[in-house]
Amino acid sequence: MEKIIVPPLNMKAAAEIHSGWKKIGKPDGGLGKLEKMVEFYAAMTVGILPEKIKTAMLLMCGDHGIAKYGVSAYPQEVTMQMINCYVRETAGANVLARHAGADVFIIDVGTAFDLSRLEDVRQMKIGWGTDDFTKGPAMSRKQAEDAIHAGMQIADECIDNGYNLLATGEMGIGNTTSSAAIVSAFTGLPPEQTVGRGTGINDERMKIKRQVVTDGLAVNKPNPSDAMDILCKVGGYDHAGIAGMILAGARRRIPVMLDGVNATAAAILAYGLCPGCADYMLCSHLSAEISHKKMLEILKLEPIIDAGLRLGEGTGASLAIAVLQAAVAVYNRLSR
Amino acid sequence: MEKIIVPPLNMKAAAEIHSGWKKIGKPDGGLGKLEKMVEFYAAMTVGILPEKIKTAMLLMCGDHGIAKYGVSAYPQEVTMQMINCYVRETAGANVLARHAGADVFIIDVGTAFDLSRLEDVRQMKIGWGTDDFTKGPAMSRKQAEDAIHAGMQIADECIDNGYNLLATGEMGIGNTTSSAAIVSAFTGLPPEQTVGRGTGINDERMKIKRQVVTDGLAVNKPNPSDAMDILCKVGGYDHAGIAGMILAGARRRIPVMLDGVNATAAAILAYGLCPGCADYMLCSHLSAEISHKKMLEILKLEPIIDAGLRLGEGTGASLAIAVLQAAVAVYNRLSR
Repeated sequence: MEKIIVPPLNMKAAAEIHSGWKKIGKPDGGLGKLEKMVEFYAAMTVGILPEKIKTAMLLMCGDHGIAKYGVSAYPQEVTMQMINCYVRETAGANVLARHAGADVFIIDVGTAFDLSRLEDVRQMKIGWGTDDFTKGPAMSRKQAEDAIHAGMQIADECIDNGYNLLATGEMGIGNTTSSAAIVSAFTGLPPEQTVGRGTGINDERMKIKRQVVTDGLAVNKPNPSDAMDILCKVGGYDHAGIAGMILAGARRRIPVMLDGVNATAAAILAYGLCPGCADYMLCSHLSAEISHKKMLEILKLEPIIDAGLRLGEGTGASLAIAVLQAAVAVYNRLSR
Repeated sequence: MEKIIVPPLNMKAAAEIHSGWKKIGKPDGGLGKLEKMVEFYAAMTVGILPEKIKTAMLLMCGDHGIAKYGVSAYPQEVTMQMINCYVRETAGANVLARHAGADVFIIDVGTAFDLSRLEDVRQMKIGWGTDDFTKGPAMSRKQAEDAIHAGMQIADECIDNGYNLLATGEMGIGNTTSSAAIVSAFTGLPPEQTVGRGTGINDERMKIKRQVVTDGLAVNKPNPSDAMDILCKVGGYDHAGIAGMILAGARRRIPVMLDGVNATAAAILAYGLCPGCADYMLCSHLSAEISHKKMLEILKLEPIIDAGLRLGEGTGASLAIAVLQAAVAVYNRLSR
């Protein structure tokens, strides 16, 4: 894959916002992470603090070969059903995104279904779901690169259209299993510390899920220091699309609000591909999934919402966007 | 003081909402604390889930005799300056409240200043600031009861006017010192574990602040099992007003969104006066102040925002109200 050049943060812009906060009648740092978030937003965008945050929430949809083992509480068809909900705007993700003033874009980057009849779904299918990674790699290197490029392309289009914040979302039955495998591969943590309950699975499915991750790692032996290798071997098209949008955002100085475990696993891949892109990540919430805290530590990110969410689909990101918008409003209203 | 009768939560209403969540296409409990919050809101209001949360944010303002020792980074005059900001809507608290769709009411329940010229400040002054509690009680029992009644009266008026959520806010230089004394008195924790940096004080002021709390407890010997005694001896009019609004809300089945340390110290007093009222508390955020976590444990409350706030003035409550509103919107939109 081509080398991505990410510009450094503009800490002068952050310092200016920091001074601006001091002009406001309140104890220094009294708004805590809200102040820091606005400062970093300015450092990313070189001081351009908009009146209104215009968010593109990109729902990257992809299926996972390992879903057939029953690692989720839901069958693979639910990926398609949920996409239909997004299109009809009848999912929680839609309501929360609307509440946050975010526009939702649905991207088929690799589902197992023909969604071409759905006008509101962007067709960028790289594969019909990943291959079963307990038998070999989930995807080829070319497929991984194509999926990353698909994510970059959509993100670039959104940035061209004036969006000043990207937010990650995803849908794909089985994707927390793939996320656990990514984190285990990257960190060396055993599946016991990375496999969570996902959709709320029972002990039996949990055992299967752990075994699937164990097998995936044993069969593929992903190279811990090669994020592309990890992605190809145990990742998903949804992860690849998210990694792409993060890289595109970072390259063009547009912040990316991360959602939960799947988004963060993808963020770790993006970080592995291009460490500088972590500077352009904003962290929304701490997921109820066990591996999330560890992942955030790797990326040096601190969540602002702690609501025990484990839904994904950009829901936590939406809540945090509302907080970011409120923080920017305070700054804009009071520092000028 | 009269006995306050608080109706029990209606857990049937909560169970109905719980069933409603299950009808929505998403993993069980995937929205974590958001689901619980809506369930409890319904349990409090007996199932009346409004389309729109209509919030009355009550900023209870009172001064503290111990402010003269320099326990805050700011002099007492800042209480008045901030109230002027609230009136002109130029404080962060105003911006965040507006962002959350909350109406702000400013109540002088015991400031050291004549605010009668300010039309938008509700005049309910019980005293011109509390007395110096290192020399004796902060207020008389009658003053404490009058201040609680003032808070109850305002809350009742808001409920009569159709508000379906009360939110706490406060302003009063020195109030985190009083809060620390309240928590130490109630829990027996030493000042080292209850006195925080408040407005961001330096080590020198921190030493003074701890000493003031130590002296206040030694001189007054508040009875740990008598919340009214604690309030009179080391509390503030702001705390009393907040305790009153909590009691009034609970009595009439209206939830009260708590803000930070001062609100929570007042909530502990309300809980001490009438344990049942804790059922009607909603928790917004985890403050950066050291004693807050302990206080929330006492009240069995879990925060949903973790943003390192230590500003008070209802700012954390406003952020959480936006989350609650979003959660109610998801439920209303998708469960019907």
